[in-house]
Amino acid sequence: MAPVPSTAEEWIARDAAVVWHGFTQMAAFPDGSPVIAASADGHHIVDVDGRRYLDAISSLWVTTLGHRVPELDRALRDQIDLVAHTTMLGNGNTVVVELAEALAPRLPVDSPHLLFASDGAVAVEQALKIAFQHWVNQGVSGRTTYLSFGGAYHGDTIGSMSVGDDGFGVDLYDPLRFGVLRAPGFDRPDAIEVACALIDEHAARLAAVVVEPFVQGAAGMQVMAPSAFGALGEACRRNDVLLICDEVAVGFGRTGTLFASEQCGLRPDLMALGKGITGGYLPMSVTAASQRVFDAFLGEDLGPRTLYHGHSYGGNALAAAVALEHLRLIDRDDVLANVVARGEQFGALLAARVEPLDAVRAVRRAGLMIGIELGPPPVAPDEPAPRWGRKVSAACVARGVLIRPLGDVIVVVPHLTTTADEVELIVDVLVEAITEVADPTSASSPTRPVRQNRRFSVDSDEQNGQ
Amino acid sequence: MAPVPSTAEEWIARDAAVVWHGFTQMAAFPDGSPVIAASADGHHIVDVDGRRYLDAISSLWVTTLGHRVPELDRALRDQIDLVAHTTMLGNGNTVVVELAEALAPRLPVDSPHLLFASDGAVAVEQALKIAFQHWVNQGVSGRTTYLSFGGAYHGDTIGSMSVGDDGFGVDLYDPLRFGVLRAPGFDRPDAIEVACALIDEHAARLAAVVVEPFVQGAAGMQVMAPSAFGALGEACRRNDVLLICDEVAVGFGRTGTLFASEQCGLRPDLMALGKGITGGYLPMSVTAASQRVFDAFLGEDLGPRTLYHGHSYGGNALAAAVALEHLRLIDRDDVLANVVARGEQFGALLAARVEPLDAVRAVRRAGLMIGIELGPPPVAPDEPAPRWGRKVSAACVARGVLIRPLGDVIVVVPHLTTTADEVELIVDVLVEAITEVADPTSASSPTRPVRQNRRFSVDSDEQNGQ
Repeated sequence: MAPVPSTAEEWIARDAAVVWHGFTQMAAFPDGSPVIAASADGHHIVDVDGRRYLDAISSLWVTTLGHRVPELDRALRDQIDLVAHTTMLGNGNTVVVELAEALAPRLPVDSPHLLFASDGAVAVEQALKIAFQHWVNQGVSGRTTYLSFGGAYHGDTIGSMSVGDDGFGVDLYDPLRFGVLRAPGFDRPDAIEVACALIDEHAARLAAVVVEPFVQGAAGMQVMAPSAFGALGEACRRNDVLLICDEVAVGFGRTGTLFASEQCGLRPDLMALGKGITGGYLPMSVTAASQRVFDAFLGEDLGPRTLYHGHSYGGNALAAAVALEHLRLIDRDDVLANVVARGEQFGALLAARVEPLDAVRAVRRAGLMIGIELGPPPVAPDEPAPRWGRKVSAACVARGVLIRPLGDVIVVVPHLTTTADEVELIVDVLVEAITEVADPTSASSPTRPVRQNRRFSVDSDEQNGQ
Repeated sequence: MAPVPSTAEEWIARDAAVVWHGFTQMAAFPDGSPVIAASADGHHIVDVDGRRYLDAISSLWVTTLGHRVPELDRALRDQIDLVAHTTMLGNGNTVVVELAEALAPRLPVDSPHLLFASDGAVAVEQALKIAFQHWVNQGVSGRTTYLSFGGAYHGDTIGSMSVGDDGFGVDLYDPLRFGVLRAPGFDRPDAIEVACALIDEHAARLAAVVVEPFVQGAAGMQVMAPSAFGALGEACRRNDVLLICDEVAVGFGRTGTLFASEQCGLRPDLMALGKGITGGYLPMSVTAASQRVFDAFLGEDLGPRTLYHGHSYGGNALAAAVALEHLRLIDRDDVLANVVARGEQFGALLAARVEPLDAVRAVRRAGLMIGIELGPPPVAPDEPAPRWGRKVSAACVARGVLIRPLGDVIVVVPHLTTTADEVELIVDVLVEAITEVADPTSASSPTRPVRQNRRFSVDSDEQNGQ
């Protein structure tokens, strides 16, 4: 007899016993509608019971073209036949050279040199360290701090968390974090203006300014008009302060241009990239440094100007092969045009159907990064929080659309190749879910999705009883 | 006409124009015998000219069983047909559950819970943050620093670099690093004893002790007798200080047991793993936390006890599939027995042929982690450094054995499945290379390897003129 397959509930219990999920209260994990993915295709994730979910968060903003893209799979398979990985420390790999050559002219950075790693936070750490040592190598002292923005999120390692703001209770780690100068967040219209004044005043202390151009993602999709950023670039140039653009979240087409810096008119000295770089397939991040910054590290072999920093899996050949093909597909399929068109479609539908809801405080959008800020009713300090973000997301998941909130902001970050029909479906489901949570008497309340649910197309294997 | 293939020299120039290699002085990179890998198989890397190099550094200590291992390739291909990646934030993936279930009982940690990331330094950062918050969550104040060891290397991000010692000019970043208590390095026989006294004295300030059990790799393979570590574990228990074992380098069989902590009689509260976890195929790292530590984070959903930390590509499905199969192969092929046997063979050959050389100051070894400390002649301050480590490595590369030094320590970290013949070849080449550099008049000096060189077996494609 064939073994009885585990159900979703069994997989959730197995998972909870051995896995620690990031940004997740593990005591609540089993009750939080977790989807345990068994497979995926296109824009859908398929769970262990064969239920299909439209992935409206792109597996935390990383998947771009979808799952099991034939060309990406082929690039990966071809590279398996060559080599999976060889070290980049003092040596190289042809596919990494090819990727760097393809990426360099697309970056809004002067003659970029690319230092690879795997986690996005590390790309930020590398940029911070390079900016810092760049001054030391030139004998400039005192350039030991950074300016960053309120609400900023740059990753969870100590350095990236230091330039990030205090969201997510990060201040608990204050004894480990280094101090930075802090401009207001993008929720304040004068954020850039204040930042420029701080740069003018404190330039002699600043190694660099760190910014997520256009959108502060983890702050709940706080959007700043791209036209505002020119002044920031000018303030950095005027004061000879390096500019680090963290495009881990906003890069690779997410906002409608390949990089958000382009729309913002910025040419940073250092850029941090990750997430979408491999189309969401494999871990890869990279720090791009301008020629001017790179040159400050040239010197005697084994000497003190060298950057003594490097990660074992930086420049992984399998990831590089996928990233290289991914860049080609973005161009071939004019993916950026779809981001703009579907973004505008979202904008119109959200304005017509979601913004007017009483439960919605604001809708913010840049390309296909969307934040819907809910306005739950105030509660007394001793009452439980309404947790609308969590509940609306669960209601979306119950309807077959995978959503994950940032507090009470519903975040929608669909694949860059999402279709017009999918956009309509997502908005339909959002309206239903928000209405159900905000006014439970008015809406139908599906529980865990059932296979008969019309929004779920069940795997054919399942239908065949396999 | 078919395009003329690029030569190694052309690839090196292309690489140097766009790639920034870690731990590498880029001004010297083109002259440093870089190998630009085009493919690999078994224990060899094949460069763009078809030259084959025996990889005696395992691509910076990550490759375990070799390149293009049929079973690992198959596991990867099978997973491509399911899904490459889905987020672990609040959701899961079956292959990650299977990997965690396979790994958990092998770890010398009580009921471990596994938090995945991609860079090894991040696994250390996660351990540091978890240890720190573990005390905060229990209302214990003042546990805000760490004890670590002289010569320690735990990675290059700000947090991991803070617990690391000042090697590689790291002190230049002191304004960004947090302070720690520092015990002596493993080059001092009393290192553990002093550490225990410091723990007894400063326990109330210590969130955790951080240690690479058995071997400080980047310090030049400084080996401490495993029997010494029992006292360290006891001091942590006695003082209720958490113990973090960083097994990124020493884990996954490298020292002859699956984890070095086993030989050292340690059961850490937190373990950092990376490098060998995927057999050297794909980026993956993980922090394992004991049940006791994990429990301190359980609480109200969205509440302050939650660990607000998570990396987009943590728990990558492709990497997990390879890691799962890799664990199976380690058992099936009794790889650990080979590590012990080949390690002993190395020990005997090095004692007989390398230690007696005048140019060699010391040979240190644990399993298949080997450091050969050279003793270059002293030079006046205005004379150029002899750079013996660099020169001996280049002489090995010229003979078809890929070696990379740590200063004047020649590091030999072959694949865990290395053969008796390969061990003999590596020692032969080391003796020739050291003799050539230390006494240039006595030895033949091959320049860049030529295809006729008997040590190079050229790709059959190349021999066929393809």
